[in-house]
Amino acid sequence: MSFRTVIPFKPRNPKTRLSQIMSREEREEFALCMLQDVLDAIPEGCTQRIVLTTEGGFECEGAETMAMDAGLNDALNRFFEGSRTNLLLVMADLPLADRNSLGGMISTSADIAIAPGRGGGTNALFLKDPSRFRADFYGMSFLKHLKIASAFGCSVQVIDSFRLHTDVDEVSDLVEVLIHGQGRSRRFLEGLGFSLVAEKGRVGVRRDPHE
Amino acid sequence: MSFRTVIPFKPRNPKTRLSQIMSREEREEFALCMLQDVLDAIPEGCTQRIVLTTEGGFECEGAETMAMDAGLNDALNRFFEGSRTNLLLVMADLPLADRNSLGGMISTSADIAIAPGRGGGTNALFLKDPSRFRADFYGMSFLKHLKIASAFGCSVQVIDSFRLHTDVDEVSDLVEVLIHGQGRSRRFLEGLGFSLVAEKGRVGVRRDPHE
Repeated sequence: MSFRTVIPFKPRNPKTRLSQIMSREEREEFALCMLQDVLDAIPEGCTQRIVLTTEGGFECEGAETMAMDAGLNDALNRFFEGSRTNLLLVMADLPLADRNSLGGMISTSADIAIAPGRGGGTNALFLKDPSRFRADFYGMSFLKHLKIASAFGCSVQVIDSFRLHTDVDEVSDLVEVLIHGQGRSRRFLEGLGFSLVAEKGRVGVRRDPHE
Repeated sequence: MSFRTVIPFKPRNPKTRLSQIMSREEREEFALCMLQDVLDAIPEGCTQRIVLTTEGGFECEGAETMAMDAGLNDALNRFFEGSRTNLLLVMADLPLADRNSLGGMISTSADIAIAPGRGGGTNALFLKDPSRFRADFYGMSFLKHLKIASAFGCSVQVIDSFRLHTDVDEVSDLVEVLIHGQGRSRRFLEGLGFSLVAEKGRVGVRRDPHE
């Protein structure tokens, strides 16, 4: 099974909902760690890794970079239009992704595999024929993508994975990285002084001041 | 593969973090819907279904009920101590659980399968030899349970399922039920007037007043 991978990425001032707990420089570094964790999770058989970036001039080890010349949906749809070869699209903020969870997508027997994100989003898509799909990210994209697949007559497998369901946007999401992360993102958070702390009901995070 | 299933359940004044949006009576009915969805998701091969309830006198269709005469951990550990037969322990607030996700637990090749909950909890456990385990719920129970398994020399498979990862405690969790639910819990929420609404970033829920 050979396939291409596309990962959209925003290097400048990303993850603003973490601003209360991380500086802009730290958020930029954290986003890079998450991107690297996603790149490390791509299964065997990937012939091309493309990081589709909102900034020209950005470079990334282990992948080609391509600057988006339009919004995310338009940029992706230009990718999809001409293409009829297997394409894995993965969001860059999935630091729990691993080869098993992404491997479950590329081995689907359906035309399309979709990994829902927490809160109605879409975290990853595997398209056997990208020309028969349109990206419609933002808002309730998971339900929109199911409708689009149906309109194109494509069969869909919904991927049941908390590793792919967990996109990192908010402070409470860092708990998942500190519990289940195995890569750079977790080590980066630990290096900044983040640790788990028991709160009422669920577990939270604490950041200890550096010496 | 034959196994017993135990589901702890609190019928009286449950899910208090939903109080802002549901009356006590509604929360009690919703908790029953979630329990029924979990019972419906138990795979083939279950020889006994036990609802371990915090209230005496509670009855439940399709399961035996047993009143807890101690706190959750003590009650479970009494269950575990004498038992050496396959036991599936599932929390009652997992309305997205389905036969595939729970089936993945009972087919584990490890001694123990554990499904982590969002925020550090434990949502389901499958124990081939319950006498070699101790329940330690509340707080960071997922990490505690991994340590306990290790202390007993048991191998562990962590189950990668968002259906089992999604326990329902907070208003934002209702989004997942309205998107991915297929059973009574979803229908109950829709009957109360709940629907999805696009908010900035993620999707929320809205409750429309009844006529």
